[in-house]
Amino acid sequence: MKLQIALDKVDTSAAVKMVGEIFDVIDIVEIGTPMIVYEGINPVKVLKNQFPNLTILADVKIVDGGEIEANYAFDAGADLVTVLAIAPDDTIRAVVQAAREHGGICVADMMCSNNLIQRTAELVNLGVDYICLHTGVDEQKSKSAPLADLNKVKKHVMGVKTSIAGGINFETIHSIVKASPDIIISGSALTTAANLREAVLKMVAVIRNN
Amino acid sequence: MKLQIALDKVDTSAAVKMVGEIFDVIDIVEIGTPMIVYEGINPVKVLKNQFPNLTILADVKIVDGGEIEANYAFDAGADLVTVLAIAPDDTIRAVVQAAREHGGICVADMMCSNNLIQRTAELVNLGVDYICLHTGVDEQKSKSAPLADLNKVKKHVMGVKTSIAGGINFETIHSIVKASPDIIISGSALTTAANLREAVLKMVAVIRNN
Repeated sequence: MKLQIALDKVDTSAAVKMVGEIFDVIDIVEIGTPMIVYEGINPVKVLKNQFPNLTILADVKIVDGGEIEANYAFDAGADLVTVLAIAPDDTIRAVVQAAREHGGICVADMMCSNNLIQRTAELVNLGVDYICLHTGVDEQKSKSAPLADLNKVKKHVMGVKTSIAGGINFETIHSIVKASPDIIISGSALTTAANLREAVLKMVAVIRNN
Repeated sequence: MKLQIALDKVDTSAAVKMVGEIFDVIDIVEIGTPMIVYEGINPVKVLKNQFPNLTILADVKIVDGGEIEANYAFDAGADLVTVLAIAPDDTIRAVVQAAREHGGICVADMMCSNNLIQRTAELVNLGVDYICLHTGVDEQKSKSAPLADLNKVKKHVMGVKTSIAGGINFETIHSIVKASPDIIISGSALTTAANLREAVLKMVAVIRNN
């Protein structure tokens, strides 16, 4: 199990400062969609330059223009790029191909997707590397991270690799860890902690000790 | 009927040059999603600065984080911002609210949405201003602009305002115009023309003369 920290509401210089505190203890740094809307793919480029060994996910949430958008992200230095599961198959294929050409990884975000099991199987067949079970920030008032969906996907789609996101914090991490996703994504529980490095180390410890 | 030109595969300086040729004859300039992925919201800011009277649509295709992402776009000077129709209702509400606060307009992109009529009615109830019938670029090999969907929506949802996109060019514009959408969106048919201004004027003429 790996830990991915989501950076959403910061700018590039704040992100560089934060990553400087944790680059040796975090598995994956996510450049969140709001950062990309604000600054484009530049924060990925800057972070990869300053931390060449850092694994970076660009949360582009591609839904069209798969080739051009995935190439922007991979060319900037992203190791993983997200596509929306509800995107047309042609878009998924284009993102997967861009990933293959760059030695990168394609993650499908299941947000707003119906037919969870059927779509997961289709995405895996299309070459998607990870299935991300995700409760978006706007729905987190009423819903927690989709643990039931994670269990369902792991049960019904043989060998599928998974990540999970949706307000995961120090209270909920224990139940998430028990479900054994490949990647656990946490944002504000880490980024708003008084001490970022301590918070990351504490969450890493929960994951490693399970 | 208005004409919206979609700028997708250019950078900010190329966009400024192009808009300089057409700002007095185009109704709406769209900063396409690939531009936003590449450069963030900056091209919107630059264009609004240089052309204060220009009407700009930021094609953010918001699917989560409605408040933060819509505010980034409206604060940068966007007049219209897109949200995906498949986004959670809470996200739609947040984008609509940001639009209201900025005197801006919320456009819902129907890409990948099922239940066309039902979802359109829901979106209108949630306060969305325009429904965009859209065949994405990755699907344009096999599908043209969704004219049948446009007619269906106009027939079944009273008073709905519409826009339509999907590879619309000088061959297809005539049939599109007959369906009377409020906004017609064209991209490469204009941006790859030998003379951009002439192409825009020619398409405007088709629209106005109908």
